[in-house]
Amino acid sequence: MVAEAEAMRAAIAASEQVRGTTSPNPPVGCVILDAGGEVVGVGATEPPGGPHAEVVALRAAGDRARGGTAVVTLEPCAHTGRTPPCTDALRAVGVARVVHAVSDPNPQAAGGAAVLRAAGVDVHSGLLADEVARGPLRAWLHFARTGRPHVTWKYAATLDGRSAAADGTSKWISSPESRAEVHRIRGQVDAIVVGTGTVRADDPHLTARAPDGALLARQPLRVVVGDSDLPPTARVFDDAAETVRLPGGDPAAVLTALAERGVVDVLLEGGPRLAGAFLAARCVDRVLAYLAPMLLGSGPAALGDAGVGSISQAWRLRVEETTMSGPDIRVSAVPQDRPPA
Amino acid sequence: MVAEAEAMRAAIAASEQVRGTTSPNPPVGCVILDAGGEVVGVGATEPPGGPHAEVVALRAAGDRARGGTAVVTLEPCAHTGRTPPCTDALRAVGVARVVHAVSDPNPQAAGGAAVLRAAGVDVHSGLLADEVARGPLRAWLHFARTGRPHVTWKYAATLDGRSAAADGTSKWISSPESRAEVHRIRGQVDAIVVGTGTVRADDPHLTARAPDGALLARQPLRVVVGDSDLPPTARVFDDAAETVRLPGGDPAAVLTALAERGVVDVLLEGGPRLAGAFLAARCVDRVLAYLAPMLLGSGPAALGDAGVGSISQAWRLRVEETTMSGPDIRVSAVPQDRPPA
Ligand SMILES: NC(=O)c1ccc[n+]([C@@H]2O[C@H](COP(=O)([O-])OP(=O)(O)OC[C@H]3O[C@@H](n4cnc5c(N)ncnc54)[C@H](OP(=O)(O)O)[C@@H]3O)[C@@H](O)[C@H]2O)c1
Ligand SMILES: NC(=O)c1ccc[n+]([C@@H]2O[C@H](COP(=O)([O-])OP(=O)(O)OC[C@H]3O[C@@H](n4cnc5c(N)ncnc54)[C@H](OP(=O)(O)O)[C@@H]3O)[C@@H](O)[C@H]2O)c1
Repeated sequence: MVAEAEAMRAAIAASEQVRGTTSPNPPVGCVILDAGGEVVGVGATEPPGGPHAEVVALRAAGDRARGGTAVVTLEPCAHTGRTPPCTDALRAVGVARVVHAVSDPNPQAAGGAAVLRAAGVDVHSGLLADEVARGPLRAWLHFARTGRPHVTWKYAATLDGRSAAADGTSKWISSPESRAEVHRIRGQVDAIVVGTGTVRADDPHLTARAPDGALLARQPLRVVVGDSDLPPTARVFDDAAETVRLPGGDPAAVLTALAERGVVDVLLEGGPRLAGAFLAARCVDRVLAYLAPMLLGSGPAALGDAGVGSISQAWRLRVEETTMSGPDIRVSAVPQDRPPA
Repeated sequence: MVAEAEAMRAAIAASEQVRGTTSPNPPVGCVILDAGGEVVGVGATEPPGGPHAEVVALRAAGDRARGGTAVVTLEPCAHTGRTPPCTDALRAVGVARVVHAVSDPNPQAAGGAAVLRAAGVDVHSGLLADEVARGPLRAWLHFARTGRPHVTWKYAATLDGRSAAADGTSKWISSPESRAEVHRIRGQVDAIVVGTGTVRADDPHLTARAPDGALLARQPLRVVVGDSDLPPTARVFDDAAETVRLPGGDPAAVLTALAERGVVDVLLEGGPRLAGAFLAARCVDRVLAYLAPMLLGSGPAALGDAGVGSISQAWRLRVEETTMSGPDIRVSAVPQDRPPA
């Protein structure tokens, strides 16, 4: 017999596997327990047009789901989109109880819990809700609430805030552990965004790669923002992944253009000028800093002009978590509201 | 009955109380357990010329120390300095066992354990040695090994490495919790060092104060390094504490001058130029960074030129500990050896 919290952790793990493949749908995970509390099915959202997590898990469970419990990271949908409502599938097989972490903020899809309750299913909401809301469903929940993709600005810098030495050298400021983690994150987002300056200076590939350098199966969209010419030989223009160029200027317009392409989860990888512009335009939802245990004392700064002239205008963050990534300090933080100047 | 590790923690706590008052002697703590394992005496090093921790604790214990255990943060001394050897005092009262954390690296004072063992005392060394060596005895052990005061470079910066906004404003980059902690640390060191630039720019008082602003009983020496004229009305020249001016140029010469005054534990509080010079001269033994959860994107850097031109010359650190200080991220790190260029 498996505790429901344990089943929810398995559902979260299943959902992590499909992050980056489901947008604009949410990456959801589902575990089916039979009436005796044993795991009889695990599923996660398939790519758009494919079945939702509940249906995948129910198929695996078959008739053993009858009288059992569905443990799912998001409230089951009650509406017909490209696929029939999950509430129907759960009722059809006779699931007795549904436990979900997060309620669906989408008015169109919401109401799944009520529909199930009305059908006599025992529904419990909120199990490990924070973990799910800050983890696999974070970007999608943000998109559902605001209509705008979720942007994580990731940067690597020294403890004194430099992204390179005075002569421009920067290989490698961050540790192998941190670089591997960034590649895993790239593999989970919908798009990576950089400015033309970074392409010109570093000629980055912007792909998600395994530690041995092999391309991961799934690649995020590569996005280069800015108007200046770039060499057609730049590595970002090879065919390892799709690349789009977007005009510079207004970060909100960049996000609108990305949303139109079904992008929900964005990793902004700099450089300092584009990051400053995104921050100033309130288009950064999370800051992910890899601080290397190094001091330089000179060299380019990790963040450029962000519209701050005086200390009272500083962009304030709330630190969510500080952990070690190998020798580096990894900080996850959320920009706080700032009253307009 | 009190476990010896618990007694050692009490000895450490007692030694923390006298940090800053004992130099050039070490701030040591001692707890005496009677034969039944009950605490019968606690003591810490008194100011130079006064009794050592063991003697203070033995006096409190009186005859109850007979057959008991002395738990002490440093190996008892076996030599006669301004006070008689502590080994004599321990033997005189008939202590049966001595447990110390750290062995004395000073050849003149060392051998206490051997003397005690020869007298039939059961001696155990190494209990909580790391905690003591990184904590209350850190500066003194460094001084005993190198002949040079231990320097902690403390700085406050934003997550992007700025120490002020573009217009120079910086009140308050660090949180009330961090500022209170810095005042506690000031109260425990022998000297606070800054450059003339910081005095001119900030007119700091450089005293150790309670949260209500009241001066602590003990004040560290205030040291201003650099040759330019300063206004005699600068707050650092008031009579709240002693202040010395030292010529600029060679950080090692600054440390020599401080050692001659009996200074063992130094808090280097900047500014960026003096800190860069100390780092480049390998005169920083510990970096203590208070990183505020803020982004500025412009403004002066926390660290100035430290002799690094290329990434291979970066000053590399080993992170000892990352903790939260209120909303700030507090990083303690140790510069690593760098082969001469
Ligand atoms: N530490 C790190 O994590 C990290 C990450 C990435 C890059 N970097 C470093 O950053 C350096 C490049 O710096 P950078 O600042 O030139 O790169 P950048 O921010 O990638 O590119 C700047 C360009 O972005 C375009 N842009 C689009 N919208 C903008 C807006 N609203 N405001 C400003 N610019 C906008 C402009 O391009 P157009 O002029 O073409 O219109 C601008 O010239 C490289 O040396 C690289 O190594 C560091
Ligand atoms: N973020 C923080 O934690 C923090 C802490 C302190 C200060 N600050 C800021 O730092 C700013 C002042 O910066 P700063 O760099 O001018 O201050 P600084 O480092 O305190 O002072 C620089 C002066 O130090 C003297 N000096 C002595 N030996 C030196 C050497 N080997 N190399 C270089 N200088 C040496 C020189 O004085 P002479 O020219 O007189 O010979 C030099 O002009 C202020 O705005 C202050 O707010 C920030």
